[in-house]
Amino acid sequence: RWIKFEEKVEAGGERWSAPHVPALPLHSLFQLRTCLQKGTVLLGLDASSFKEIIDKVLSEEAELQPALRERLAALLLLQPQHWPTKSLLQLLAELGLSPCRGRKPNCPTRHPPAASSPGQSEPRTQLSKTPLKEQLRNRFKKKVPPGAEAAHVAVGEVEFLEKPFAAFIRLRRGVSLGSLAEVSLPSRFLFILLGPPKVKAYHEVGRAMATLLADEPFQRAARQAEHREDLIAGIEAFLDELIVLPPGKWDPSARIPPPSHLPSPRRRTAVDPLDQQPHGNGDTTAAGDRASPGHPGEELERTGRLFGGLLRDIRRKAPWYGSDFSDALHPQCLSAVLYIYLVTVTNAITFGGMLGDATANMQGVLESFLGTAFAGFIFCLFSGQPLTILSSTGPVLVFERLLFSFSQDHSLDYLEFRLWIGLWVAFFGVVLVATEASHLVRYFTRFTEEGFCALISLIFIYDSLKKMLSLADAFPINWQYRLDNVTSYSCTCNLRRPFNPILTCLTTLQCPPLPSIQHCGGPKVSTCEPSSLPTLSLQPPATPAGLSRTQCLDRGGHLLGTSCQYVPDVTLISFLLFGGTFLFCTALKRFRSSRYFPVGVRKLVSDFAVILAILASCAVDAVLGLETPKLLVPSELKPTNPARGWIVFPFGANPWWVCLLSAVPAVLVTILIFMDQQITAVILNRREYKLQKGAGFHLDLLCVSLLMVVTSVTGLPWYVSATVISLAHMESLRKESASSAPGEHPEFLGIREQRLTGLAVFILMGVSVFMAPVLKHIPMPVLYGVFLHMGVTALNSIQLMDRVRLLLMPAKHQPDLAYLRHVPLRRVHLFTIIQLLCLALLWVLKSTVAAIIFPVMV
Amino acid sequence: RWIKFEEKVEAGGERWSAPHVPALPLHSLFQLRTCLQKGTVLLGLDASSFKEIIDKVLSEEAELQPALRERLAALLLLQPQHWPTKSLLQLLAELGLSPCRGRKPNCPTRHPPAASSPGQSEPRTQLSKTPLKEQLRNRFKKKVPPGAEAAHVAVGEVEFLEKPFAAFIRLRRGVSLGSLAEVSLPSRFLFILLGPPKVKAYHEVGRAMATLLADEPFQRAARQAEHREDLIAGIEAFLDELIVLPPGKWDPSARIPPPSHLPSPRRRTAVDPLDQQPHGNGDTTAAGDRASPGHPGEELERTGRLFGGLLRDIRRKAPWYGSDFSDALHPQCLSAVLYIYLVTVTNAITFGGMLGDATANMQGVLESFLGTAFAGFIFCLFSGQPLTILSSTGPVLVFERLLFSFSQDHSLDYLEFRLWIGLWVAFFGVVLVATEASHLVRYFTRFTEEGFCALISLIFIYDSLKKMLSLADAFPINWQYRLDNVTSYSCTCNLRRPFNPILTCLTTLQCPPLPSIQHCGGPKVSTCEPSSLPTLSLQPPATPAGLSRTQCLDRGGHLLGTSCQYVPDVTLISFLLFGGTFLFCTALKRFRSSRYFPVGVRKLVSDFAVILAILASCAVDAVLGLETPKLLVPSELKPTNPARGWIVFPFGANPWWVCLLSAVPAVLVTILIFMDQQITAVILNRREYKLQKGAGFHLDLLCVSLLMVVTSVTGLPWYVSATVISLAHMESLRKESASSAPGEHPEFLGIREQRLTGLAVFILMGVSVFMAPVLKHIPMPVLYGVFLHMGVTALNSIQLMDRVRLLLMPAKHQPDLAYLRHVPLRRVHLFTIIQLLCLALLWVLKSTVAAIIFPVMV
Repeated sequence: RWIKFEEKVEAGGERWSAPHVPALPLHSLFQLRTCLQKGTVLLGLDASSFKEIIDKVLSEEAELQPALRERLAALLLLQPQHWPTKSLLQLLAELGLSPCRGRKPNCPTRHPPAASSPGQSEPRTQLSKTPLKEQLRNRFKKKVPPGAEAAHVAVGEVEFLEKPFAAFIRLRRGVSLGSLAEVSLPSRFLFILLGPPKVKAYHEVGRAMATLLADEPFQRAARQAEHREDLIAGIEAFLDELIVLPPGKWDPSARIPPPSHLPSPRRRTAVDPLDQQPHGNGDTTAAGDRASPGHPGEELERTGRLFGGLLRDIRRKAPWYGSDFSDALHPQCLSAVLYIYLVTVTNAITFGGMLGDATANMQGVLESFLGTAFAGFIFCLFSGQPLTILSSTGPVLVFERLLFSFSQDHSLDYLEFRLWIGLWVAFFGVVLVATEASHLVRYFTRFTEEGFCALISLIFIYDSLKKMLSLADAFPINWQYRLDNVTSYSCTCNLRRPFNPILTCLTTLQCPPLPSIQHCGGPKVSTCEPSSLPTLSLQPPATPAGLSRTQCLDRGGHLLGTSCQYVPDVTLISFLLFGGTFLFCTALKRFRSSRYFPVGVRKLVSDFAVILAILASCAVDAVLGLETPKLLVPSELKPTNPARGWIVFPFGANPWWVCLLSAVPAVLVTILIFMDQQITAVILNRREYKLQKGAGFHLDLLCVSLLMVVTSVTGLPWYVSATVISLAHMESLRKESASSAPGEHPEFLGIREQRLTGLAVFILMGVSVFMAPVLKHIPMPVLYGVFLHMGVTALNSIQLMDRVRLLLMPAKHQPDLAYLRHVPLRRVHLFTIIQLLCLALLWVLKSTVAAIIFPVMV
Repeated sequence: RWIKFEEKVEAGGERWSAPHVPALPLHSLFQLRTCLQKGTVLLGLDASSFKEIIDKVLSEEAELQPALRERLAALLLLQPQHWPTKSLLQLLAELGLSPCRGRKPNCPTRHPPAASSPGQSEPRTQLSKTPLKEQLRNRFKKKVPPGAEAAHVAVGEVEFLEKPFAAFIRLRRGVSLGSLAEVSLPSRFLFILLGPPKVKAYHEVGRAMATLLADEPFQRAARQAEHREDLIAGIEAFLDELIVLPPGKWDPSARIPPPSHLPSPRRRTAVDPLDQQPHGNGDTTAAGDRASPGHPGEELERTGRLFGGLLRDIRRKAPWYGSDFSDALHPQCLSAVLYIYLVTVTNAITFGGMLGDATANMQGVLESFLGTAFAGFIFCLFSGQPLTILSSTGPVLVFERLLFSFSQDHSLDYLEFRLWIGLWVAFFGVVLVATEASHLVRYFTRFTEEGFCALISLIFIYDSLKKMLSLADAFPINWQYRLDNVTSYSCTCNLRRPFNPILTCLTTLQCPPLPSIQHCGGPKVSTCEPSSLPTLSLQPPATPAGLSRTQCLDRGGHLLGTSCQYVPDVTLISFLLFGGTFLFCTALKRFRSSRYFPVGVRKLVSDFAVILAILASCAVDAVLGLETPKLLVPSELKPTNPARGWIVFPFGANPWWVCLLSAVPAVLVTILIFMDQQITAVILNRREYKLQKGAGFHLDLLCVSLLMVVTSVTGLPWYVSATVISLAHMESLRKESASSAPGEHPEFLGIREQRLTGLAVFILMGVSVFMAPVLKHIPMPVLYGVFLHMGVTALNSIQLMDRVRLLLMPAKHQPDLAYLRHVPLRRVHLFTIIQLLCLALLWVLKSTVAAIIFPVMV
C-alpha cells in the first residue's frame, strides 16, 4: 500500500513493513509504459460496482475467448485478503489463535492482491458489495488523509492466459467498491495486469503503477487525461525527474527511510534538479531551520506615530484574547502549570533569599513571592506575549545591592529612594514605548541573541551547581572520618550557666571554691584534683541528656566536640538526588523519541517528565528519611523586615531633591530592563517556534514599565522576562501533529499560545503561603536538579552549541548541516570562537560589580 | 572524487562532503550514452604524459579548427586545483592564513576540474609533469586501496566552442600523469566533455561517467572493450541494474549515506534484482549477523576413533602456536591484560571469600589466588582456546558447600574426600575426551546458548548489586539522624576492667565499698550518691580518650552509644563510585562510535575504557579520602586454614571405601563441569567473532580434567571456563580494519587470538601477593561497577535482549531485522517469552540447593 510512501506486506512476518521510499527497477517503468501503450485504457468509465467495471473492461478485449473472459472475471471478483491494522487489544485477543494469513489492498493507491498467482491460492469468497466488518474496524483508517480516494492495482500470473492482459481504468466519479480496498474509500483508478507465468516482472510493474499513482503530478495528469497519449506523457514527465542509484553501491533490499522534509511540489517543478544540487537545504536538521532566526517582521516595523507600535500590538493581539483562554484546554497545560510553578517558586525563594541578604530584608522571600505572583499575573493577563514568565534577574539584584549600600552610606531611606527610581524608570519606559524604541530589536543578530541565551543558561547551570556545593558547606562531611576512631567522635553542649547535676556533684566534692561556676565546665575544673579528672575536662561532660542542639544554643551554650561541625550522609544523598533528578528528567524527556511503547504513552510521559522526576525523587527522599534541606516557603503574610509597611510613601524620609536625582540611576535601570526584556522577547518569538498569535514588543514593555510603578510603591522586587524559565514554559507546551500518513514525520505545529497556564502558575504562587505544608516535602536538591535540566535544555536549543561540538569533530564526521555546505569550516570555527570569547567576557563582567552595565555590553 | 562512494567539493564550505551513494539524474546517463556514441573513443592509446594524450585526442577531431584546438589544449593543460586532505597539524598551521580556494581531482575516478568554465577562473599554472609537493603530502593517499588506478573526468562549459566535444580515452598501460590527480597514481581512463554554455548538464554527465568508472562490472567492460559498441553495451548493462527513486518522495539534495553492507558483486549479477526483494537480508544489523550462531563445523565432527577429536584439535592448533605469541604485540593487549587482571583478582577474592565461608577456610582467598593463577596459566599455555579465562563458578561453589557439610556430618576428612572426587572427575573427563563426547555440543541451539549466557550475565549483574547492598549493611547509615540531636550521638568504650582515672576518682569519694569494680562503670555505680550521678551512669563515661575501636575491643571492652553501629558517608560514596564507574566505563566504551575527535584517539580511549574508569574512580576516592572498602589481597603465602598443608594425601584420614564411593558425586561434578565448560566454549567460538585459529573443544576439556587432578591434590579450588570474563577478554581484543575507502564502514576483522594476554594475566595473579600495597588503593565499589559493566555488556551481546526490547515496541517502530521479515511477530514474541520463562526457572533453580543440577537443566 502507498499513501505517501510504500509499505509492503511481509508474508513471513505477517506484518506491514516500515514505510519507505519506493525504489523501483528502471525496467519496470519501461514495461509499464509499454503496458499502457498496448493495453486497454478506459477513461471516464461509468460504473457503480467492481463487477460492472470488470464486465465492461473484459468486453473491450475482443481477442479474449468467452471462456477465458469468465475465468478472468471470476478470478478478479474474488475477495482479496486484507491484513488489517489492529489495536493492541484486538492483537492480544488474537494472540492465541492460529495464524490467519492475509493481504490487504489500499488507498490512494493499492497493493497487488498477490505477487504469486491469485488463482493458486486457497478457495476464497466472492467480493462483497459492502465493506466488511474488519474494514470498518480497521484502525489504519486514522492514517488516511481526509478526502483521499483509493486506487487499485491488481497484478499477477495466471496460468490459463497466453499473453498479458493489461487495463487502466478511470471511473467518472469516485465509487465505493465494497470490500475491495483495505479501508472503505471511494475509488477512481484501477489498474489490472495479468499474464502468463513466464514473464516475471508483473509485481514490479504493479509497484511502478502504484508509485506513479501516488505521485501528485501524475495524478493530475491521469485525472485530466483524455487519451492514452496523455497518460504516456505523464509517465514521460515522471521519468524526466527520476533519480537513479547505481547498482553495487547500494543494497537494493535495503529500504530507504522516508526523508524528514519532503521537497515542496512547487519547488520540484520550478527548479531544474540538475541545478539545485549545490543549494540543497532539504536535509537541514533542526539547526538548519534556525538558520534564519527570529527577526519578527511586521511586529517591529516603525509606524512613525506616537504609540503607533503599541496600538498595533493591541490591535494584533485583541482578536486572539478569547482563544487565549479556550486554547488552554489540554492536559499538557496541567503539566506545564505544575512544572513552571515549582520552578518559579524555587526561583522566587532563591532570589528572595539573595535580595534579603542584599537589602537587610527590606525585600525578602515573602516580598519575592507576592511580587512574582502579582506581577506575573498582571503580565499574563495584559501582555503581548503571555508565554513569558517574569522573574527577578541577576542584574537587577546587583543594582539593588548597590543601591542599598549607597542609601546606607548616605543615610537615605532605601525604599523611598527606590520608589522614585522606579517611577522614573516607568516614565522612561513609557517614553520608549511611545517612541517605538523597540523597533531597534530587529538589529539583534544571532550573535547577540545566542550570546545572551547562552549566558543566561550557563548562569542557571552554574547556580544550580553552586547551590549544591553550598549544601556541602552547610552539611559538611567529615572526610577524615576513620571507622576505628568511632569512639573519639562526639558532640556535647557546653552551657555557660551549668544546670546539670554532675557539676553540682562536683561542687559538692571537697574542692577549693571555684573562682566562678563558669569555669567548672571548662578546662579549669581541673583545678579540682588535677590528676584524677583529665577526661572530665577533655570531654566536656556536662550536658543533661536530651538537651538538643537548638535547646543548647537557646540557653546560651555552645557545642564542643569533634563531630559537632559535621553532618553525615545529607550532602551525599543530596548529590544523589540532584544527579538522579537531572538524569531522570533528561531520560523521560527523551522518551518521546524512543522506540518503546505507543506514541500516546510516550507523549504523556514526556510531557509530564519533570513532574514525574520531581515526584519520584521526593518519594525516594521520603522513604530514605534523611533530613535533606527542604523547600520552605513563608507561611505568614507580613513584611520580612518589620521596619517597613506594605506601602512606600514618596516623601518624608529623604530630602526633596532625591526624587530628581533618582533620574540618573533610573537611566541605568531603564537600559537594563529594556535590554533584558527585549532580548528575551526576541528569543521567545523566534520564527522556529511557529507562533501564530504574534508578538507584542511594545505592549510587553509597557506592562513591565507600569508594573514598575506598582512594585516600587509596594516595595516589592522589580521584574523582567526570564529567558530560561520562559523557554521551559514554551517547551512544555509544544504541539505536534498527532497522526499522519505512515512514514511522515510528526510535524511541530507550534506552541499552545494561551494565557491560562501563566495565570494559573501565578495564582498558585499567590496561594503558596497556604501550601507550605505540602511544599515542605520537596527537597531542594531535587529542584536544583530541575534547574540544571532547564539550563542544559536552553543551552542545547541554540546553534552555538552545535558549532562548539563541531570544533571537536573531525571534518568527515560532521553532520551535513546547511551552513557547512556553504561557509568554510574555518569561518564557522572563527565565528564560534569569537562568540565564545565574548561569552567569556560577559561571564567575567557579570561576576564583577560591572554586572549592571552588562546589558549595555550585550 | 569517487573511490567507492561519491564525495563532493563543497565550494562554499571549502571541504569534501561526506561520502554518499551517487544519485544521478536518469537523463545524464542517456546523455552520456549519446556522448560515447558520437564522441571520440580511443582505446589502447600509447602515451606517457597528459600533453601527449591531449595532442593525440585533438588530432583525432578533424572538424576542429587548429586555433580552437590550441585553445582547448591550453585549457586542458592548466593545473587543476586540488583540495588536499591535510593533517590536523597542517590545518592548524594554516588556520590563520587567508582562504586558499581549491579543488582537487582524483582516483580511481575523478572530479571535474570545475563545474563552471575552467576558462573563466583565475590564471593558473601549467600542469606539472611530476607530482606536486602537496600531492605527496596528501593524507588522503592512505584511504586509497593499494593497486588503485586513477581515472580523470574533465567536464565544463567553454564559450569558444560551438558544439560539444567529448572524448573517452583508455591508455595502453597505467601512466602517472604528474600533478593531474589529487593523489599521485597511475592513470588509465580519461573522459573529457567540453561544450558551449547553453547545454547545462555537463556536470551531471561527468558525475555519471565517474560513477560508471567506479562500478566494477563497467570497469571490466571498459578494460576489455575493443570497440565503441562494447562501451555502450557496458552502459546498457549498467542501466539494466539501475534502481530509480520517484521524484517528490525523496529529496534530491539529500545524500544517501553509504550502506553498512554492500551486496557482493557475485550476488549482484547472479540474482535477478526483481526476485530477490522478499529475501533481502542486506541491511541485517549486527543482530541479523548472529542469525546463524556458532555451530562450529569441522571442530565437532566425529572421527569415530579413540581420542580422534583430541588429536585433530592438537593438529589444528599446533601450527598456530608460534603466532599465538607473536600476534600479541599490540598496545590493545596491554589494556586487555590490565582489565582482565583486575577483574580476575576481584573475582578470585569474591569466590575465595565465599569458598572460605563454605569450607571453614579449607579453601580461602589465598588458595583461590594460587589456584586461579596456576590453573589459568596452564590452561592458557596448553588449551585449544586460549582466550578462555578460567574461574570458579557458582555451581561448583554450591557443590563444595554441600560436600563440606556432608563431610562434617559424617566425620569424613573433607580434603581427602574431595581429592578422590577430583580424581574420578578427571578420569571421567578423560573418558569423555576419548569418546569424543564434545561432539554433542553441536546440538546446543540458540535457545540453550542464550539462556545460559543470559543467566550468567544476570548473575554478574545481580551479584554486583548484592555486593553493593551488603556494603550498606557493613557500613550502615543512620537514616534517623537528626541534625538537631547532634549532641545525643556518641560512642564510647565500655571496658569491663576499668583502667580509667575517673573511676579511680569516684572510688576515692566517700562511697560505700562497691560490690565489684565491674559495676562501677555500669549503671550500678549510681548506688554512690544516686541523685547526683545520673548522667555519669547513663553516658558510660569511662574510656580513656584515644582508646580506639580496635583497642577497646582488644581489651575486651564493648562499644556503647547511639552512633557506634553507624558509619557516615561511606555507603553513599561507595554508591556514587559504583554508579560513576559504571557510567564512565559505558560512556568511554561508546566513545568509539561517537563523532568527536579523530578515530585514533577514540579507539585508544575505547580500548582503555575500563582501565581509565578504574583509575579515575580511584583518583576521586583518593582525593576524597573517605575510608571506603578496598581491595585487600593476601600478602602471605601460607594456607588460610593452618590445619591443612599444601598437599592432600589420598589415604589415611578416611575409610578405604570412600575412594570408591567418591565416584557417585564425581558423576555429578563431571556433568556440571562438562556442561559449564562446553556451553562457554560454544559461546566463545561463535561464528560472529570470526576466529581464525579454530576451537579445541576436546583439548580444552582435557586441560580442565587434568587440572582437576592438580587442584584436588593441592586442595585448591576447581576451575572451569567463565563465560562473562572470557567474553570481556575477547571484547577487549577486537580488531577492526584501520583505514578504508571513504564511506566504507570499518570492518570487524576478528579477535586478537593469542595466548600472551591470558598468560600475563595469570602471571600477574601469581605475583599479586607482592602487589598488595598497590592494589589496596582500589576501592571495591569501583570493581563492582566494572562487574556491572561486564554483566550488562554480555547481556546486550545476545539476541534475546533485542527480542525482549521488541516486546516493548509497537510494530511500526521495530527495526528492520532480518528475522522479523520472515517470522511472524507473534512467534518471535512467543519464542522470547518461553525463553524468558526458562530463564526465570533457571534463576529460581540456581538460587536453591538444586543449583548443582542446574547444568543438567540447561
